[in-house]
Amino acid sequence: MSAKTTRDHIVEAANQLFYHQGYEHTSFSHIADAVQISRGNFYYHFKSKDEILDAVIDARLANTRKMLEQWEAEGDSPEDRIRSFIHILIVNRNPIKRYGCPVGTLCTELAKLNHASKTEANRLFTLFRTWLRRQFTLLGHKSDADALAMHLLARSQGVATLANAFHDEKFIRQEVKQMCDWLESYTKGAECDGK
Amino acid sequence: MSAKTTRDHIVEAANQLFYHQGYEHTSFSHIADAVQISRGNFYYHFKSKDEILDAVIDARLANTRKMLEQWEAEGDSPEDRIRSFIHILIVNRNPIKRYGCPVGTLCTELAKLNHASKTEANRLFTLFRTWLRRQFTLLGHKSDADALAMHLLARSQGVATLANAFHDEKFIRQEVKQMCDWLESYTKGAECDGK
Repeated sequence: MSAKTTRDHIVEAANQLFYHQGYEHTSFSHIADAVQISRGNFYYHFKSKDEILDAVIDARLANTRKMLEQWEAEGDSPEDRIRSFIHILIVNRNPIKRYGCPVGTLCTELAKLNHASKTEANRLFTLFRTWLRRQFTLLGHKSDADALAMHLLARSQGVATLANAFHDEKFIRQEVKQMCDWLESYTKGAECDGK
Repeated sequence: MSAKTTRDHIVEAANQLFYHQGYEHTSFSHIADAVQISRGNFYYHFKSKDEILDAVIDARLANTRKMLEQWEAEGDSPEDRIRSFIHILIVNRNPIKRYGCPVGTLCTELAKLNHASKTEANRLFTLFRTWLRRQFTLLGHKSDADALAMHLLARSQGVATLANAFHDEKFIRQEVKQMCDWLESYTKGAECDGK
């Protein structure tokens, strides 16, 4: 027995469609068809596509927080945890090759639309940034922890964009390896300074 | 006296609008309004938005080729020329902060739309990739020239995506400096090997 409500199903379907075909291209009909509910039932839950977008962003924020907490719990060290972040490029390589990064592509689209929810969507990036910054701080970095977090976030975004254009898995794996090597060089530096 | 035709004006306006607000969001009307021509005149030149898109991609390919040729002519060394590539992040920082990279964001959008012209748009990336690869080859790199080209392209894309989300000019400048440092380390290596 699923505890999921009709509202949950709508948000899930919209989340997938926004990711796969873009927010602007996705219509109310696309979402209602995917959930297989009547227009009446649909409008009972959401009056506009903007409302659905806000619910999708909320769901993504909640899912991201959950994922980061899980990495936090499972990783034995900050280095391990940062490696979990780097490895989502491999874990999610198939959707990334087809649709790019869900965070980057949504933020980019909403920026172009100058959409009222763009700031809210950017909080997805901020979640990763703050979490990564904390890991680098735990590794002994202070003034440069935020720059290191932004650097890694940028590299990961760039790999997703080019993987989407060139569908090249070998490229993803090479870049992931380089990011891990880069991380190792910073870890060693921190250990030397801090211990 | 301008030699520009009405068709050129339409393509230019569409190019800007696709960049600023996205392809899907831009309508025939938006473009006609920007060019200030009648619907009749407009339809005489283009029958569909897809046709305009193809013309926009052709224009971007031509402009990119021209820019790369200019960097080629002006740069005293391959290193200088690659630096020209890295520095477009600073030269174009204001539009990038508002709208992201014109190449990356168009390719990403067309991939999501599974648009017939997505392969053609990806040729914009391929132009940069081939050009950068050649510069790295001239620097003495052989088997890794393409990987270095893709790495730099990815880093540049990632910086554009995060600059668009966070509007942070300091971040752009820091990353550009790091890319130049990275380039220098590879130049020195190549010089040691090759000379």
